[in-house]
Parts: sequence; C-alpha cells; structure tokens
Amino acid sequence: MNHDKNQKKRGIIVGRFQPYHLGHHNAVKNILQEMDELAIVIGSSDDSYNLQNPFTSGERLEMICGALKKDRLYEKCFIAQVPDVNENSLWTSKIISYFPAFEVVYTNNPLVKQLFEKAGYSTKKMVSNLKDIDGMKIRQLMFSGKDWKKLVPASVADYLEKIGAEKRIKAIIEKEEKE
Amino acid sequence: MNHDKNQKKRGIIVGRFQPYHLGHHNAVKNILQEMDELAIVIGSSDDSYNLQNPFTSGERLEMICGALKKDRLYEKCFIAQVPDVNENSLWTSKIISYFPAFEVVYTNNPLVKQLFEKAGYSTKKMVSNLKDIDGMKIRQLMFSGKDWKKLVPASVADYLEKIGAEKRIKAIIEKEEKE
Amino acid sequence: MNHDKNQKKRGIIVGRFQPYHLGHHNAVKNILQEMDELAIVIGSSDDSYNLQNPFTSGERLEMICGALKKDRLYEKCFIAQVPDVNENSLWTSKIISYFPAFEVVYTNNPLVKQLFEKAGYSTKKMVSNLKDIDGMKIRQLMFSGKDWKKLVPASVADYLEKIGAEKRIKAIIEKEEKE
Amino acid sequence: MNHDKNQKKRGIIVGRFQPYHLGHHNAVKNILQEMDELAIVIGSSDDSYNLQNPFTSGERLEMICGALKKDRLYEKCFIAQVPDVNENSLWTSKIISYFPAFEVVYTNNPLVKQLFEKAGYSTKKMVSNLKDIDGMKIRQLMFSGKDWKKLVPASVADYLEKIGAEKRIKAIIEKEEKE
Amino acid sequence: MNHDKNQKKRGIIVGRFQPYHLGHHNAVKNILQEMDELAIVIGSSDDSYNLQNPFTSGERLEMICGALKKDRLYEKCFIAQVPDVNENSLWTSKIISYFPAFEVVYTNNPLVKQLFEKAGYSTKKMVSNLKDIDGMKIRQLMFSGKDWKKLVPASVADYLEKIGAEKRIKAIIEKEEKE
Amino acid sequence: MNHDKNQKKRGIIVGRFQPYHLGHHNAVKNILQEMDELAIVIGSSDDSYNLQNPFTSGERLEMICGALKKDRLYEKCFIAQVPDVNENSLWTSKIISYFPAFEVVYTNNPLVKQLFEKAGYSTKKMVSNLKDIDGMKIRQLMFSGKDWKKLVPASVADYLEKIGAEKRIKAIIEKEEKE
Repeated sequence: MNHDKNQKKRGIIVGRFQPYHLGHHNAVKNILQEMDELAIVIGSSDDSYNLQNPFTSGERLEMICGALKKDRLYEKCFIAQVPDVNENSLWTSKIISYFPAFEVVYTNNPLVKQLFEKAGYSTKKMVSNLKDIDGMKIRQLMFSGKDWKKLVPASVADYLEKIGAEKRIKAIIEKEEKE
Repeated sequence: MNHDKNQKKRGIIVGRFQPYHLGHHNAVKNILQEMDELAIVIGSSDDSYNLQNPFTSGERLEMICGALKKDRLYEKCFIAQVPDVNENSLWTSKIISYFPAFEVVYTNNPLVKQLFEKAGYSTKKMVSNLKDIDGMKIRQLMFSGKDWKKLVPASVADYLEKIGAEKRIKAIIEKEEKE
Repeated sequence: MNHDKNQKKRGIIVGRFQPYHLGHHNAVKNILQEMDELAIVIGSSDDSYNLQNPFTSGERLEMICGALKKDRLYEKCFIAQVPDVNENSLWTSKIISYFPAFEVVYTNNPLVKQLFEKAGYSTKKMVSNLKDIDGMKIRQLMFSGKDWKKLVPASVADYLEKIGAEKRIKAIIEKEEKE
Repeated sequence: MNHDKNQKKRGIIVGRFQPYHLGHHNAVKNILQEMDELAIVIGSSDDSYNLQNPFTSGERLEMICGALKKDRLYEKCFIAQVPDVNENSLWTSKIISYFPAFEVVYTNNPLVKQLFEKAGYSTKKMVSNLKDIDGMKIRQLMFSGKDWKKLVPASVADYLEKIGAEKRIKAIIEKEEKE
Repeated sequence: MNHDKNQKKRGIIVGRFQPYHLGHHNAVKNILQEMDELAIVIGSSDDSYNLQNPFTSGERLEMICGALKKDRLYEKCFIAQVPDVNENSLWTSKIISYFPAFEVVYTNNPLVKQLFEKAGYSTKKMVSNLKDIDGMKIRQLMFSGKDWKKLVPASVADYLEKIGAEKRIKAIIEKEEKE
Repeated sequence: MNHDKNQKKRGIIVGRFQPYHLGHHNAVKNILQEMDELAIVIGSSDDSYNLQNPFTSGERLEMICGALKKDRLYEKCFIAQVPDVNENSLWTSKIISYFPAFEVVYTNNPLVKQLFEKAGYSTKKMVSNLKDIDGMKIRQLMFSGKDWKKLVPASVADYLEKIGAEKRIKAIIEKEEKE
C-alpha cells in the first residue's frame, strides 16, 4: 500500500550486520536471483560500541558496500541506515520512511514477518547456504582471539582488521563484566 | 584522526536534499572530478511531511540513487542517512558515526566548515555551475503550481510526480497556515 | 487495514484542545449523530505551559471528560492521550497505536486528511455549528482579560478558573516576550 | 499539593495491564466501594510488541473500556495513557501531568508508594480478591497454548482472540530467543 | 517539600548564561549577601552552536567557575548543568533532580516564579545593579564586532577570546540566514 | 584537540558515584598530587531510583561537594553532570561538551580508555589505595542493613542517612524482584 509499483521487482532485508558476514552475503546473492533489486536495511543504526552492536552504522555501511562492490552487486542494491524506534508498533512505518518502495520482505524472524504481513507486505524466508554463521558467534571468536576471518567476505576481514575490531570487542566485554 | 587512510580519495557532502536538484547533481559531478569517491549524507533523516522537509529520507534516497544510477555515478558514491542530533556540538561525531572515512568536506555553510575544521578535517567550497537553484525555491514552485521539473534531474521529476509531491506540499503549507 | 471490524461504527477526531471549547463540543455532538462511538485523541500530550499548549494533557482530559459527562455523552466516547511523534511519516501509526479501531477520521486539516487516506482510512469534514471559535482566540482573550467563558462549556469554564488559567497564560506570554 | 480539591473523592491506580485481567478488574470494583471516581493509568504507553508489553496502549485502552462499560463502571472512571519517563525522579510529576487531581494512590509497589508519599500523596494497598492472577502468568499461558481466558473479563478474552494475541506472543518470544 | 532542611540557607538561580556576564555576576554577589550558599543552574545544557545558545554547557561552566574563583566566591557556590525537559510541567522536578536542596528561588521570570511557587518554594526577585546587560545584547555586539568585553567579567572575556567566540557567533548567524 | 592549553594541568575522572565513596575520594586526592585541577564528571546524570543508579545526580553532586569542601579540595575541582548518550560513539564528544578542557583522563575502564585515546587524549590508571570498595558492594550492604557507613566519607554517610538511602534501596530492589 505504501509502496510504489515499480517495474523492477524489489526485495528488502533488515539486519544489524554486526558484522556483515558470508551468511548475509550468500543470502543477498540468492535474493538477487529472484529480484531485480535489493534494499539492505542496517537496523539499530544509532547503536555502537556495545556488546550486541560493536560497530557504528557507518562502519557497517563500509563493510556492506565494500563486499557488494567487490562482487559487482552494488549497482543492484540500496543501503539504508535506520535507527531503532522505541515503539515496535511503529517499526514497519519507520522502515518504510527510510526506504519506501519494495514488494517482498525476506526474513527468518517471526515477529518481523508478522509485523510486515500486518502492514500488507508479502514475506519470504531468507535462505543462506551458510546458515550456521551468525554475528554473535563471530563476535565471540573475535573476543577469544580465534579465527573469524574465514566467516566474512575478504574485504570485510581487511576492514575489521584495519579498525581494530578485536581490540574493541575485548574492551567492550571487559567493561560489561565490570558493571 | 577519525578517518582511515584509504588509497582512494573521498569527499563528503551533507544536505537535506528536499528535493535532490540539478544544483546538487552538478556539484556531485564536479567533486567526482577531484575525488575518487563521494559520500552523500542525507541529513535530517527523521524529518518529513513538514515545510522544510516534505520528503522522507527514503524518498530522498530514491531520488539520489535514481539520478546517480542514470548517470552511471552510483558505483563511486555512498549514501548515508543521518538523523538530526539535538546538540550541535556532537554533530560532526554523529556524521562520522554514520560514515567514518573521508578526507575533504565540501560545504558552503560557514558553521559546517567551522565544526569540521575544529574536528581536524579539511574543507572546500562546494561548487555548482547551477548555483541559483535551491530547495526552497523548488518547493515554492511546487506549491504555486509553476514549473519546477526542469530544475531537477529527469528521473527525480518522474519520481516526485509519482509520489504526488505537489499535492503533499500544498497540504503541508495549508496546515501550517492554519496553526 | 489496522482497524478491527466492530459492529459499532466509530469515528475519531484529533486535536490539541487548548482548551476544549464549544466548537469542539458541538462537532462531537454532530459526529455522534452519525457514529455509534467517538474517539477523542488529545494530541501533543507531552506539551504544556507553553504558548500553543498552556494546559497539560491531564488538564485537557479533565475538561473533556467533565463536559462529556455533564451532557451524558461520555459512555459513547473514548479519550486517548498521544504524545507528538518527531517524524510526521509515523504519525498515523502512532495514533493507531494509541487507539486502534475506527472507521472514519473527521478532520478539516488537509495534511491529516492526506496522511490517513494514504493509510487506507476514509475521512470526513468535521462540522461545527460554531466554527468561528478557536483555541488561539480563546487564549488571547484569556491573556487580555476579556470574556472567554461563554466560548467553552460551563464545566470547562469552572475548571479553567479553578486552575488559574488566565494567570498561567499571562506568565507564559510575558516569559516568551522576554526571550 | 498539585491536586485540586474536588468534592468527589478520587483514587488512582497505575499499571501496565498486559493484559487487563480479573485481578485488576476486581481491585477496581473494590476501590470504587471507597472512592467516588477512579483514574486508571496505563503506564509504558509507548511500549508494545515486546515480552513485557505485547499489547499497544490503544489495545489496552480497548480492553479496559470494554470491561468497564460491560459492568457499567465506565462513567466513574478516567483512563490515562502515560509513556515511560527515563528519569524515575520525574515519574510522579509525569503521572500528575497526565492526570492531575486525585487523593489516594492505590498500589502494592513499594517504590511507587515511596515516590508518591514523597510527593505528598496518601497511599493505600490495592486489594484484589483474585490476587494470584498476574500478567506474566497469563502471557506464559498464551505462549504455551493453555487456557488463559478464564483469567480475564469475558469481553477482554473476546478482544484478545480477535487481535490474535496468542500468535503475537509466540512470535515475540521466538524472536527474543533468537537474539 | 523535596528539599532537606540544612542549617545553611541556600538560594538558587537558573539561567542559560550565554555568556555569563556582569549582570549575572552582580546578582550572584547580591544573593550571597542574603544566603549562605547559592546554586547556579546552567539550563539548556544540551544546547550549543545555535543562535540562542552558542556556547556548550561545559564552556559556560568554565566561564562561571573562572569568575567565581577569581572573586573567591566558588566555595559558597554549586554549579549544576541541567538539560531542557520537553514537558514544562516536569521542569521543577528536573531542576530538583539535578540540585535537591534549596529554600529560595531567585528569578525575574514570571513562569519560573509560578512553577516553583506551585511546587511549594518561595521566590524572590533577582536583583542586579547592572540590569540593562543581557545575553542577547552581548551576542549581537559579538556578531557586529563591537565592544562586548566590558560587559563580562575579565576572566570570561579572556576565555571567550581564547575559544573564538566572535567567529563562532558569526558562523551561526550566517548559517541561520541561509536556511 | 578539543581542549585548550591552560597553564594549569587538568585531569578528569568519569563515574556514576552511586554513592561517592572512600575509594573515589582517595583516588581524587591521589590525582590532585599530580594535577593542578580535576574535573569530576557525574555520568548517567538522568538516572535515579533504579538498581544501578539509586541517587539523583543532584544528590550525587551534594555528596561530592560536601566531601570535597570538608577536605578543602573543592577549590581545585570542577563537577559536571552528564546525561547518558544513546550512541557510545558520541560519548567522548558529549563529555567534552560538558567539560571542555583537560589533558589526562584517569580511568580503569578499558572502553573509556580506548574511546578517549581514539579522540586524541592521554589516559592514566586511576589509583585508589582503597580499591576493594565499589558502589555495588555498598548498595548491597545498604539493602541488607549491614554497615556501609565506614566505606564513605563521614559527610556522605550523614547525607545518605538524611535522605533515607537504605529505605530507598530496599524499595527499589523489592520492586525489581516483582517485575
């Protein structure tokens, strides 16, 4: 209802991308098999330097754009940065305000599915061939100094090393443990 | 200090893009003569349906991406959506949080220039060959039903027509006059 | 779409009610000729002690409930208190979050009409037989010490006198003039 | 001090009403034995679609008004919707801003009691004959698909069924478990 | 009510101190003739780099502490930094939350007087022997490059020169004129 | 970079001071051996009446100023009250906005250290001879009615007794256990 009828078919995914990993990247590729264009929405864009969201939304934008450009997918994608909204009942309106026109919401989150269906959108499962990769696992590997680099696109691994991701995550966790 | 040393030289511009017009578009082209990449920051991303900000940040993202893709400039650009921050003293940190790595800030706003220079960035004039176009003039033409379409990229004119921009601006102004 | 299908037909009006006056009260009676129930939404519920919103939302609730109970209309009405939302694009969702189920929006505000129609609701003109009464005029009469009491329901006049409305408005205006 | 001296004696209760259940409803009836009028304050009015607050404040308003009207108690009640305030030290002022005039605060919460007594109000225990019913228990029964309907007024059970309460709570809990 | 009964008599003043000038400083000295201690509350502490509030609350803290220390008054003073509260009805509670114990509010603002009296405090006129000095006048002199230094304590003049106050105010005003 | 070059050397510490205890007080004395002046920043200044932050920032200001004045240290100190900022990436800018000029940040928190070093400041360990005292332990002693008074400066113990600290903490904890 809130979306325009474009000729091009557009999907949308919403995530925190802490960090953007190969599971995300594979799902993006899969969706682009079915849709002409894809909007990647970076949620919790105001959060950073905490346990669940160590990286700023700008850093996440860099990771995503870097990986997409490398694989020549950027031209087909839009990246939106959306702050959290206190009231979950306003959440779909917030997403639409930051990215207005799409047809299919790809999600595995049952609440996201329910909220978008209530708002009149169709939803589909987000399928990744690498579904056992998730952000929390990567952050834990970073903390414990184990190998996490093979779980993210190469350009993301370089970027995270450059900004000192491991050291940041260690400082965040040490601080949390103190409080 | 907050920026990484990329090989590629990156500029940044910050605007509200209500709407994205030929003045902006020409400046973008000019900057891309000097810089490898450009970040276009959509400010006041939370504002919409009011006099100064009739369009949502998502609609502005559509306008900008549409025009850049048409002219094959999208690959060299990043688009960030940044909400206003109450405290102006935090504003540069907010921008950096939404887009971290750049060298030169292009701006004609004396306060933006002062704040970024205080934060250690170099600044340059933003030069447009079409400098007498501005957003407020276009919004006034929309309100009075005069021709504004030649002042924006063709793809933007189509988009604004599709979302009923004139009707929206008239409703906003009528409402303001009542209060 | 977001509303349930009740048997009873429900209308909704949104206002700031600074103060609740005979123009409002007459419109409420007119709507209740056409609808079984009416939701009265007190907007800007967080605002108070300023020029446009001198009274707290609680004081406005008292005025409205007092007048409705006096005229035996309370049983057919719901009163909601809704804070402003920064982003106008989220405004209808906010109203729906504070009062979910209604069919017809009564409004003379062109932007309210446009936003609710975009969200799939039908709208109607709000008709008052006393249409030259408005809140700003009453607040000005209060400031200048002229007679405003005949423009509000008797119970509202009593209430406003009890809480010292005139003295409050004078203090607010004197303060504004100083800044 | 902040309250007016009405002839009618007024009590106040504050709750989240997730959902409004027979324990609440019985306490309301008990208070109306002692007081002429009662203000029911819906707290956390901005919260919804999360574990502690699955229902919007509008949905809670519907539940409360429905049950009160059914039992012919609505005429004696006021319903206020109050967003959370970040600073607990401002909380009583916030309540007073949303509902100004009352004499006795009915509460079993030791902090609510302490804050209102500090602000000069008298407090009393809120007594329900059905004191082993609480919102969390009902939400857990909803999640596990067990019978919860006998714990809420019949009109509330109908309403919750109509809006798909069980399905919503399941989606919220599944989502929480994932994060 | 919210204040403790100290032996020492305490006054309070609330201002924005943009900048702290000789009018303020003289009033402070006058109050300290009558009271043992004085709390100086820096309001709008979140505002900076705008027309009404060019200086951060930290810069204002520096100005005030510098002038008080110079004149050996600091030992008798407390400085509090209080952000604006959206809801004016919560304003006195906010002040009390940031500085709890005082007896007399010194103010020439009729709304401040009314709000504190409503909260049970006594109020007095704030008397300065230099009453024709005000912040707006000083900011205008700064903008037009005329002499403003004799209107502020010498230590404040030095500080404002060091942080480039004139240049900042010019940039702020030029920016405002553009929008 | 954001700090002025004063002749006097200034340190800064940031804490929540719930309550201000002998560990803090000893560290303050130690820092004042090395630095001419010290800024004590009261963080989370908007939080109060909750588990982690039972006392308002005003009450904490009273505790700190009382203890400093008693020991004739107040003249060398500045006290700032800083609300939390949602975005941790803006945190150092927020501190600087509330207290602009300092050289050395004293902290034992690894994230604070990392954030200030990223912003160009030098950091040092905060050394207390009484390092096994911490706020959480004191709050637990208050809750269980055991002796906590010897862990805070005598003036702080008197103040906390006067404002009913034990009773407040018990009410907060009882409330938390209920939810």
